[in-house]
This record gives sequence, structure tokens and C-alpha cells, in this order.
Amino acid sequence: MSTSSAIPSQQQGTTTDRHLTTTRVGIVGGGPAGLMLSHLLARDGVDNVVIDTRDHETIATTQRAGILEAGSVRMLTETGAISRIPTEGYEHAGIYLRFNGTNHHLDFKELVGQTVWLYPQNDAFIDLAATRARDGGDVRFGVSDTQVSGIETDRPTIDFTDADGNPCRIECEIVVGADGSRSKTRDLIPGRTKHTMKYPFAWFGILAKTPFQADELIYCHGESGFALISQRTPEIQRMYFQCDPDTTAEDWTDEQIWDRFDEILAGPDGFRLQRGEIIEKTVLQFRSFVQEPMQYANLFLAGDAAHTVPPTGAKGLNLAFADVALLAPALVRWAGTGDRSELDTYGERAAKRIWKAQNFSYWMTQMLHTHTDGNSFTDKRQLGELMSVTSSKESMKYLAECYTGWPYDLPDEAPAQAPAAEQLAEVAR
Amino acid sequence: MSTSSAIPSQQQGTTTDRHLTTTRVGIVGGGPAGLMLSHLLARDGVDNVVIDTRDHETIATTQRAGILEAGSVRMLTETGAISRIPTEGYEHAGIYLRFNGTNHHLDFKELVGQTVWLYPQNDAFIDLAATRARDGGDVRFGVSDTQVSGIETDRPTIDFTDADGNPCRIECEIVVGADGSRSKTRDLIPGRTKHTMKYPFAWFGILAKTPFQADELIYCHGESGFALISQRTPEIQRMYFQCDPDTTAEDWTDEQIWDRFDEILAGPDGFRLQRGEIIEKTVLQFRSFVQEPMQYANLFLAGDAAHTVPPTGAKGLNLAFADVALLAPALVRWAGTGDRSELDTYGERAAKRIWKAQNFSYWMTQMLHTHTDGNSFTDKRQLGELMSVTSSKESMKYLAECYTGWPYDLPDEAPAQAPAAEQLAEVAR
Repeated sequence: MSTSSAIPSQQQGTTTDRHLTTTRVGIVGGGPAGLMLSHLLARDGVDNVVIDTRDHETIATTQRAGILEAGSVRMLTETGAISRIPTEGYEHAGIYLRFNGTNHHLDFKELVGQTVWLYPQNDAFIDLAATRARDGGDVRFGVSDTQVSGIETDRPTIDFTDADGNPCRIECEIVVGADGSRSKTRDLIPGRTKHTMKYPFAWFGILAKTPFQADELIYCHGESGFALISQRTPEIQRMYFQCDPDTTAEDWTDEQIWDRFDEILAGPDGFRLQRGEIIEKTVLQFRSFVQEPMQYANLFLAGDAAHTVPPTGAKGLNLAFADVALLAPALVRWAGTGDRSELDTYGERAAKRIWKAQNFSYWMTQMLHTHTDGNSFTDKRQLGELMSVTSSKESMKYLAECYTGWPYDLPDEAPAQAPAAEQLAEVAR
Repeated sequence: MSTSSAIPSQQQGTTTDRHLTTTRVGIVGGGPAGLMLSHLLARDGVDNVVIDTRDHETIATTQRAGILEAGSVRMLTETGAISRIPTEGYEHAGIYLRFNGTNHHLDFKELVGQTVWLYPQNDAFIDLAATRARDGGDVRFGVSDTQVSGIETDRPTIDFTDADGNPCRIECEIVVGADGSRSKTRDLIPGRTKHTMKYPFAWFGILAKTPFQADELIYCHGESGFALISQRTPEIQRMYFQCDPDTTAEDWTDEQIWDRFDEILAGPDGFRLQRGEIIEKTVLQFRSFVQEPMQYANLFLAGDAAHTVPPTGAKGLNLAFADVALLAPALVRWAGTGDRSELDTYGERAAKRIWKAQNFSYWMTQMLHTHTDGNSFTDKRQLGELMSVTSSKESMKYLAECYTGWPYDLPDEAPAQAPAAEQLAEVAR
């Protein structure tokens, strides 16, 4: 398959008109996944260039995830990507599951010996961009007209117009598509399958000027909806409640929003949110999505470009870092020795973790949101599930294991265990 | 509310025409739940009578569940209800979950120190009926025209015609409805809610003359359907495959049935069923159902009359015994001292276990059956779940805990754990 027809910019000017940069890895997308990959590659001497259509300010002010797995924190700190998480972030030893108006504490540290960290994604982005700048990385924000071509050749190119209006070209050997949930690079993979699931609800998210509402996140299954009481800083909090996907943020006054939280959180313990000025209101649509395959010839996808999860369970950003944790060493190996074996199995290896995370995010979403099918069995069964999960040490350990994150390179499935045919004679007395 | 309008038999003849039996507890339904309750009550000197519309032969030959939880086995053996389980039953230390054509063994004994027992429900029935007969229990099979009345009075009555055509009346103080999934007694509870869920698939069940196909049960998620490879005796096996609810048993030849099993079970390990003569074919519809409340005045429901589960997970019969394990001591206490406190909280206490079992049965059903919605995300996510479950010791322990059964009298929910408000000052540095 040739993608040359998809490069109208080549008709607009010859390549000699363009500012040419030659590098080994061209990274499309300068969010946390792209920047982290760039950092890891640079650290091991693999030359790379990052571009992003958004400007730095836009990414820096977009509210996204806030919870980092212990593995993500280790990767970020141990590689020198972000040093201030231990001093500026907040370590959370667990979460609260709230239902029937009662909090059930899951102490991850006690359950599985792991913790997670509150550190907003936009701060992680700001830090990563600063680290790349400090280290002389070539990162270009605010580009336009991006065109990737030649991914099935030894010399893929990325054409674009930079923030100052200059036509540019990157000549590279490998292209990484880290261009987020609206990825264009993923369209270049032939024969792809898009696995998608939509949900009948969305999240109404706010940023509010209040103190911390709790010491850890509260995932609340209320009779009439779900709410997540999250955090940002001692002064500003991030909170969400379940809403209809057709809701618009402007439909809700501040008072209605606080009242809705009260309604969902109501319980015999009298827990109520402290109210404050609401400084941002947004409706978040969410879906589950995986594209397979996530690589083709010299194009490799990482992060949201290949998969998105519903936010329940905080897996999105962590899953992007997990991709990078597999892709970076594979690229370093290829760059140093020409050995593509790790690179060629990247997608397959990443998929194991991706589908675990998809399942976990789906499970948390289904378990915690209030279903709108009007079936009372569903509602009661769901309370049965929440009761089962919180009354079983084993189930809480499993949830804690999933929430705090799996190892990056998962082993192959356990070897086959045939029903012990030789034991049948014994059994058949 | 008076139920007198629901007693047409009273118009057909005066009560003096009827053979009158006076007892303390009248049990409607002589399946395992009713007979086990009768046995436990008699053992503690509480007089009771059991009736069932079916004859002994019909119940004895109806193929039902085959797996007993360790707790059920303990209750049956320790109370002298059935003595031959340890010698005639088969102890299973676990199950196989088969997917991607590979078996994944869950060793319950190793995981949670518990086992289950293969002992067919119809054998349990035969034994329980024999035990009641041996002990002089009053159990009447093959009755007709059953009418329960006066449950809100001190003197409820059960009118019926016995197997010989004699009109009979039981005068009692408490009525127990253990009349199965098509219960009539549950209709007598005013203000009830029926929580129901239907599934888009059914089971095609066979009894076949073959040796044991494996040393333990195999729950198989195949690409095109689910299969359960169960057991009965060294000579006869019980097996099922997922089918359309509209399928009729006659639509399938023996060869088609064996071919279908081969298709579902196919895998790289080459596992195949040993074929043999098929001596019974049935299509099992299944649903999830709970009626709340399960008691009213002097009527108490137990077993399938109050709740049915899909068979995946083998909870049906065990849940019936679990009801009896709560109801029997409550009735003994009431009979001996007049204290109704245990009796009055019976339904509420039973509900905790019922909803856990409902959730487990739903989970196993959803996780193992092949969904027919044509959504590839669902299929891949489901494999992700099976992979997650079988690669996590914690998750396997949770499944083992559920499968082998919970304690009968579950504790109340954990006490409220308010977000530690006093810690917030500390957190907010």
C-alpha cells in the first residue's frame, strides 16, 4: 500500500522548499507519551524530533487525568524526566469506594504493598516539556498540515508547517504516532480493526476552589448516579458526577451542581462536599477503544492514538506510559544494533496490558455507574457486587493490583494445563 | 390483606370433609430445600409436614445441579441427612477455565483451602427423601390443588388433595414456601418486587454414556460459544453447550452435538471429548431472579421459590441449602421459646448471601458465554478479563472463594469509614 496519495502538501511545493531535519525517530504528538518517549530515546542517544499541532499553552491548561501508578512514577523519576513528583505530588495509599452512603476504604499499601500518586497530567506535561527543553530536545508545538508518508519505506517523512509558518520536513527511519485520541497516524495502518464500546453516560467535570474534600479519591456509587471526588491542589479540586451524554455544561448553575453532588453522596455518615467557586465546567464523553494492529512497517502507535479507556480507574495516562516503557527500549535496541525483534513484537506485547486495562476500566465503569436501563435486578446485583468486592480481601487485593498497575512486560499466558488424562483412571473408581 | 379470596377449595367442601393434620411447620415443596428443612426441624423436635405436587419418581429423575459447596456437604453429613457423599461423591479440588483453546487450572484447595463435591441433585433428593422416610417424617408427594391460606393469622392452613385423591388439610403455625422456581406460595407475599434478568442464550444439555472426560469440571469459553464439561458417574456424563433459546432438543442429531462440542473445545492441546451414546437431550432456559421480600407474616420462602440463578457457577442448590441453614435454627428457636427475632430477620440476612451469589452467577455467565452482540470490543475485552483473572492469584482466590461458598450468616457490612477529615489538615501542606 502506498500512502503517497495522502500527501497533498507535496503538490503544493517541492521538498527543497522545506526546512529539512534528518533524525532517526519522528514522533507525531507532544503529549506526555510523545515527550516521555523523546526523553527516553535522547537519554540513550537516539536522535528524535517531536511535533504537535497544539500549542504548549493549550496542552498545559487541558484538565486530564490526575493519578499516576507507582510504576509510572518510578519511570518518570528514575529516568530524570520529572523530579518533583515526590515533593509536589501527593502519595495516596488507597481509594474509597462509597455505596449505600458508606465509605469502604481500600488500602492499597496494606493490600498489595503499592501506592499511587496524585499528580495532574497537565503538570506532568509541563515538566516533561521543560525537561526536553533543558536537554536541548527538538520539540515543535503549534504545527499544522502534518502529513506522514513513506512509512513502509526506510525513509519515512513528516511534512508540516511550523508555528512560524515555515514549511518543514522531517526525514526519519521510524515514525511514532502518539497523537492522541483523535490520531491521524493510526489511519495509515492498513487492515486495522477498531474495537469500540460506547457508554450511555458521560461525566460532568468541575474545577472548584475548595480545600481537599478527602484524603484520597472517593468513587461513589449513588442511587441516582456516580460521582468521583478527586483532587488537584490544596486550593483547587477536580470532581465529577455522572450525567447524560447530551448534557451541556451551561445547563447547570453552580448551585445545581453542588446540589447534585449532595444528592449522589448522601449517606448516614453525613458526608458533604465543602462548596466553593466553580472555575471550570466540562462534559466528558467517554468510550472504550482499541485499534489493532498498533504498528505497521515503520509506524508505531503509542498511548491514546492506539487505545482510549473510560476514566474510571485512572488507566489512560498510565497506559500511555506503559506503551512507552516497551517502545523506548525496543527503539534503543534497534537504533544501536539494527535488531528489530523487540520492535516487531511491540504491539503484541503491549496488547496484553492494554486489554487488562480495558477490562479493568470497563469493570470499574460498570460497577460504579448507575445504570439507566430501569432494571431493578441490575441495580441490586450491582450492590451485591460492591458488597462482594469490599467484603473479600482477595477481591480488594485484585482491584488494588489492577489500580496500582501491572508490570510493563507481561509474561506470556500460562502454559497449557491439559485435564490430567492420566489421572482419569484414578478418578474412575 | 386477606388471602381468603384465593381459597376456592373452601367453597368446594367444608373443612370437616378433609383429613386434618396439625403440625407446627407446613412445608410446601419436597425438593432438597424442603426436605432438608424438614430433616433439620425434626432433628430438633419441631413437628412438620412436607407436601409436593410432583411424585417421587419425577423429582428423582430430573437432572439438575451436580456440585455441592463444602458447607453444603458439611451440613448434609454432620446433621445425618446424607451419609454417603464422602464415599459415593467425588471431591473436586478445583475447576478448569478453558479459553483460547487452553486450560487454566484453578486449584481451590491451594487457593482458599476448600474443595467442592460432585454429587448430583437428584441423588441428594433420593437420599433426603429416604432419610425422612427412615425417621418417620410426614412427606406427601404427588398432591394436587394446593391452597395456602391464613398466613397472616396464627393458624395458617394448607389444603390439598393427596396422591390417593383424599382431600386434606394441614393446620400449622408457620408455612415455608420451598416450591421451586415456579412457586405459587411466593405470590402470597403482598407488595413484593420481582427482580429479573433474562439472558440471550440457553444451554443444550446432554447425558451421555462415556467415561469421565476430565478429572474436574471444564468451563470453556470458545470463540463460537460456551461449553461446560461436567460429570455424573464413571459411566455417565453431563455436558452442556451454549445455544439459542429457541433451539429445540430434537433439532440436533448426536453427531451434530458431538461436532459442536469439538468446535467449542478446539485448541492447540488437542483436547477432544470421548463420544458415546447420548441418552438425554434438553434445552435449559435460564434467568436470574430474586423476589423481595422473601417473608411475610407467617410465610417464609426458601430456595428457588425466592431466587433462581443461571447455572454457571453452580450456586442454585447451594443457595437453597444456605437459606435452610438460616431458616432452620430460626424456626427451632421460635418453636422452643416463642422468640421470633431470628425468624423476623431471616430474609434480610439471607439476602446478603443471595445477592453475592446472584452477582457471582451473573459474572461467571457474562465472563464465559460468547456474546452475540457482534461487538469485537466485547469479545476482546472478555478475553482480557479471562486473562486477567487467570493471571492474578488474588482474582483466582476471589473466584475460588465465591465458588466454594461463603459462610451462611454473613456479617453486616463493614462499619462506615468516613474520609478522615482530621487527616485533611495534614494532607494540605
